[in-house]
Amino acid sequence: MSKFARNQWYAAAWLSEIGETPVARRILDEPIVLFRQQDGEVAALLDRCPHRLVPLSMGTVVDQGIQCGYHGMVFDRKGRCAHIPGQSMIPPRAQVRSYTLAEKYGMIWIWLGDPALADRSALPAINHYGDDDWELIDGGYQHHPSNYLNIVENLMDPSHTTYVHRQTIGNPAAANEGVKMEKSNEYIVAYKWLRNSKPSPMDLQIKDFGDQLVDRGQFFYFIIPSISRVDIITMPAGLEPTEDNFNKGLRNNSYKFLTPETETTTHFFWMHLRNYKVGDTAWSERMRGIFEKTFNEDRDIEMAMQRSQDEVGVRQFVGLEIDRAPTVALKMIDRMVKDEQRAGEPAAA
Amino acid sequence: MSKFARNQWYAAAWLSEIGETPVARRILDEPIVLFRQQDGEVAALLDRCPHRLVPLSMGTVVDQGIQCGYHGMVFDRKGRCAHIPGQSMIPPRAQVRSYTLAEKYGMIWIWLGDPALADRSALPAINHYGDDDWELIDGGYQHHPSNYLNIVENLMDPSHTTYVHRQTIGNPAAANEGVKMEKSNEYIVAYKWLRNSKPSPMDLQIKDFGDQLVDRGQFFYFIIPSISRVDIITMPAGLEPTEDNFNKGLRNNSYKFLTPETETTTHFFWMHLRNYKVGDTAWSERMRGIFEKTFNEDRDIEMAMQRSQDEVGVRQFVGLEIDRAPTVALKMIDRMVKDEQRAGEPAAA
Amino acid sequence: MSKFARNQWYAAAWLSEIGETPVARRILDEPIVLFRQQDGEVAALLDRCPHRLVPLSMGTVVDQGIQCGYHGMVFDRKGRCAHIPGQSMIPPRAQVRSYTLAEKYGMIWIWLGDPALADRSALPAINHYGDDDWELIDGGYQHHPSNYLNIVENLMDPSHTTYVHRQTIGNPAAANEGVKMEKSNEYIVAYKWLRNSKPSPMDLQIKDFGDQLVDRGQFFYFIIPSISRVDIITMPAGLEPTEDNFNKGLRNNSYKFLTPETETTTHFFWMHLRNYKVGDTAWSERMRGIFEKTFNEDRDIEMAMQRSQDEVGVRQFVGLEIDRAPTVALKMIDRMVKDEQRAGEPAAA
Repeated sequence: MSKFARNQWYAAAWLSEIGETPVARRILDEPIVLFRQQDGEVAALLDRCPHRLVPLSMGTVVDQGIQCGYHGMVFDRKGRCAHIPGQSMIPPRAQVRSYTLAEKYGMIWIWLGDPALADRSALPAINHYGDDDWELIDGGYQHHPSNYLNIVENLMDPSHTTYVHRQTIGNPAAANEGVKMEKSNEYIVAYKWLRNSKPSPMDLQIKDFGDQLVDRGQFFYFIIPSISRVDIITMPAGLEPTEDNFNKGLRNNSYKFLTPETETTTHFFWMHLRNYKVGDTAWSERMRGIFEKTFNEDRDIEMAMQRSQDEVGVRQFVGLEIDRAPTVALKMIDRMVKDEQRAGEPAAA
Repeated sequence: MSKFARNQWYAAAWLSEIGETPVARRILDEPIVLFRQQDGEVAALLDRCPHRLVPLSMGTVVDQGIQCGYHGMVFDRKGRCAHIPGQSMIPPRAQVRSYTLAEKYGMIWIWLGDPALADRSALPAINHYGDDDWELIDGGYQHHPSNYLNIVENLMDPSHTTYVHRQTIGNPAAANEGVKMEKSNEYIVAYKWLRNSKPSPMDLQIKDFGDQLVDRGQFFYFIIPSISRVDIITMPAGLEPTEDNFNKGLRNNSYKFLTPETETTTHFFWMHLRNYKVGDTAWSERMRGIFEKTFNEDRDIEMAMQRSQDEVGVRQFVGLEIDRAPTVALKMIDRMVKDEQRAGEPAAA
Repeated sequence: MSKFARNQWYAAAWLSEIGETPVARRILDEPIVLFRQQDGEVAALLDRCPHRLVPLSMGTVVDQGIQCGYHGMVFDRKGRCAHIPGQSMIPPRAQVRSYTLAEKYGMIWIWLGDPALADRSALPAINHYGDDDWELIDGGYQHHPSNYLNIVENLMDPSHTTYVHRQTIGNPAAANEGVKMEKSNEYIVAYKWLRNSKPSPMDLQIKDFGDQLVDRGQFFYFIIPSISRVDIITMPAGLEPTEDNFNKGLRNNSYKFLTPETETTTHFFWMHLRNYKVGDTAWSERMRGIFEKTFNEDRDIEMAMQRSQDEVGVRQFVGLEIDRAPTVALKMIDRMVKDEQRAGEPAAA
């Protein structure tokens, strides 16, 4: 029984990764080959030629699709065999599984579940993506050798910053007080407000606030089952909490797209949007460096945790108050997986 | 139940590999030590001292045989214990399995099955080996991380050349048309003739054919269970197909000796004989380079295929027309293994 | 059922290893973190935060103990949770196992069994440690990828020296004749005397003996279950065998402390004491180099033996006369483990 929700869009690759050379990527523990056909369309197939199981990713992209590097069988984007050298009859079993894809936000999104349920409108919404007055950092990717649930917990949990990231973004004063939580069917958010405070040292590097006090908001969204959005707001003190006002100061939106590779490893895609220093590529590169270092710190903890959990056979011994939001997120994922499996079962007689 | 035919000669090593230093080599999943005794005789023993299981290959060759590097027990070429330091009584269990060997063609051949059946006349026949007007390239060895059956299929299948070896010996025009097959109890051969054609570009580099047309033959022999011979003939057009006439132009004989190391890895020995450019060592080195590169291309495919097959638990999903000869070869091997096992069972009451 | 005696002191670390940075070390297959608290006391805890199983060795030493590097939970030297950031209630399960330690001979000793039985007086006795007229070489550590019983056998067995250490300390003339054995409840010793002989070449490098003949004694002690002491004596010929007389010539005491890491790997700590060339650090460094090389030779054999034993599933096929002392040592260890396990079981109704 799969431990993953399958009727979902998962980030599969950055568009920039997919060209003439096929890319092998394991997703939800299935070996998949991604390639761009000569008509520009991207395709994803099970990465195994049905003949003798050679990975198709060792082959080459041709007019009609992808050609196996061993005996030249060609499969089109639907996984149908279009050509077998030396014979005209195509055996019925000469086909491979194909996957539904979508392109959006500079990424390839993949749907591994029931193709009939794949709905482009269910692709994630990324606020301000493409807006002229927002600056984008994208192309972020890391390989995290840990079960994706460990990473979900990490991303829903602001309190680890003080300890894991003390060398990078950590702040000894940060604590868990005043954290609130809200949830819908699709997401959960943990957040807190620091009212009438001075801007952070980082904020002061970006903008001269003079004597102005600010309201500082931190929102940790998790869109079930695989997307994290951290929304950091610094806005003039006293304004109503509206989307419009949120943009009146400095705002950072950090997105992570988690794609389980196996039960113990995860593809970690990330992008970042900000409403300041638009066009300042030097600033972007500086931020990218800090993010990479920060996420590496998380990765090291997650990796050690995974090894430890593998040895013991459980994920957790004791619950803490800071676990409230992560625990809810994990329950929502668990229910999503179970609901999906129940829906996939034959109806009772 | 072994998956390998045991009552067979397998290539174990090149003679040049075996000197004063013992060589450890796993064959049919048995750890074996090969060494040359001081009287010049080569011996093969199970590579485990019966005392505490230290590999004998860590020891040294002495007058009476091989001496364990731990406590100095000495075993002769029959695996009998000839000396135990500090005691005169040799316990009955102080012995190791020995293997029957033969030397021929510059190689050590090993017999892992019933020693009573080991018959030197069953050693492979290598045409023109040692002939003055033929040039030999030998000493070839590669380690292929794949089950040897994958390699048998590869060697019986000319059609992969177009795809796997496009960077080396591949020829886009090569196809599977006109391939015929013959078999005896000992071997199978797939072959085709290209009649009244121009010599290949390679052939023209070797010899000036003028306007002469040629008949070009390609024979892919597989001598069950482990030897491949590829016989490539370019002879004046219109001659009778006799062994004598085959030698009247350019002829290449490429031999591979497959020795299963484990169920997923194979020792790949090779040698090559040609009837032209005799004594031209520069040409030989050029050919050796091309062969090494070509066999590496096969190895990469075979290795990826093995990983894929290991994950799925089957070797093949769909059969193609090009599989005809390889399939027969595999059936012959399978029958050989089963016959051998049946012969080894006690008769029914 | 553990294969190790637990109610024993094992060498855990050199004092010099344990400072402000926590040290992860697996002992008897338990992951353990060792650290020195700010009051100077050394502590050892199970190396898993009970929250999400992150190794505590990734954390930092703080006033009250060690702080997990993920969410900042603090555990004191008894494994009690002293602090959880963001909450005042300490859940009962928020604790980790702690281990009893002792410091002696520049080492940390650890007791993994019943803490009530941990007795400092049971710490090993190291002769002449700290004596002014003896010179110490300490800090020795190697990782031996082999079950510790293989190493026990090696250390109880002088006869392997001729073969394993032929490049270093080996002596072709060394043999097993005249070896005697004695045992008590705590230790076993195999020994032999070479009476009225010339000093060894090594001894002659150290001291001018003139025409004096010597008695040379070699004592291989094994203190069950984990300590080897090799006592090499060169004393004027004809003296009574008293502890006093043993010190009247040249004497070397080589100690090894074996601490099982897992069932197939062992921590190998060593130190050496001599009653000559006191204060000669150049001589000490020379000896250290020879020891390291010699122990590496043992390690290579032990590692290969372990792989072979793993494959076969047994440790030994045939017994030799040289096995007499090692076999007794292994039986004593086996009885110690069984007695301990029986004592740990509930009394029969």
